[in-house]
Amino acid sequence: MINPFTDEYFMKKALNEAEMAFEKGEIPVGAVIVVNNIIIARSHNLTEMLNDVTAHAEMQTITAAANYLGGKYLKDCTLYVTLEPCQMCAGALYWSQISKIVYGATDLQRGFEKMGTQLHPKTTVVRGVLADEAAELMKRFFAERRK
Amino acid sequence: MINPFTDEYFMKKALNEAEMAFEKGEIPVGAVIVVNNIIIARSHNLTEMLNDVTAHAEMQTITAAANYLGGKYLKDCTLYVTLEPCQMCAGALYWSQISKIVYGATDLQRGFEKMGTQLHPKTTVVRGVLADEAAELMKRFFAERRK
Repeated sequence: MINPFTDEYFMKKALNEAEMAFEKGEIPVGAVIVVNNIIIARSHNLTEMLNDVTAHAEMQTITAAANYLGGKYLKDCTLYVTLEPCQMCAGALYWSQISKIVYGATDLQRGFEKMGTQLHPKTTVVRGVLADEAAELMKRFFAERRK
Repeated sequence: MINPFTDEYFMKKALNEAEMAFEKGEIPVGAVIVVNNIIIARSHNLTEMLNDVTAHAEMQTITAAANYLGGKYLKDCTLYVTLEPCQMCAGALYWSQISKIVYGATDLQRGFEKMGTQLHPKTTVVRGVLADEAAELMKRFFAERRK
């Protein structure tokens, strides 16, 4: 039997969220959190609309997933996010003890890996899934904004 | 004329918030954000009550202060927090470009300074204000919890 639930499958859902951010004039980053192949939280960056630097896609999905699960630890959960998380989001993921993080494009300037933010020892990381699509969306956004 | 608005004055307000957290069974950390000697946001840790690892005192005050100011950057603002911020909160403070952070007790295990989290270049840090009071409250909380 074919398993449709690959990392690419869920990253496409995160990319859909990123496109929704783009349409609102927000830096286009999207995220979903998955447990047992079910999406339990989905969101996109809303820092401009909410006037709130903490309103990154990851932060919103962490809060929503914990609400859905009825507990604050995201064990057996996977976060799919189109851009490498920042220090803040990686710090939140540390506290959540999330099992797996899959990200798309690398953020060479403000990504947590370059910044040296620590994840929880229980967390594994997969990098570069649909990275070109995520990076292309970001490039297109900043090109539009410069116009 | 006597100026009552010292760092100790505002840290006492943050300690009041930490005590409110203690009374609710939350790890006792409190915070206020001040601009022009006016407290524009106050909160305390609510991670247990809200089942949400992102509900640290600092995160809530950052969101509340930006809401009060009508803009996401906390220029000319000072955060007073009873415990050294973690990676997540320091990462949020980085994005906020806050002018000044005053913290009480040092967090040798999970504080941002040991973890190496970067603040915004515009941000200055004052350490150890009413540190003994903040540390004593934490010690008392964990002693109670072990009972």
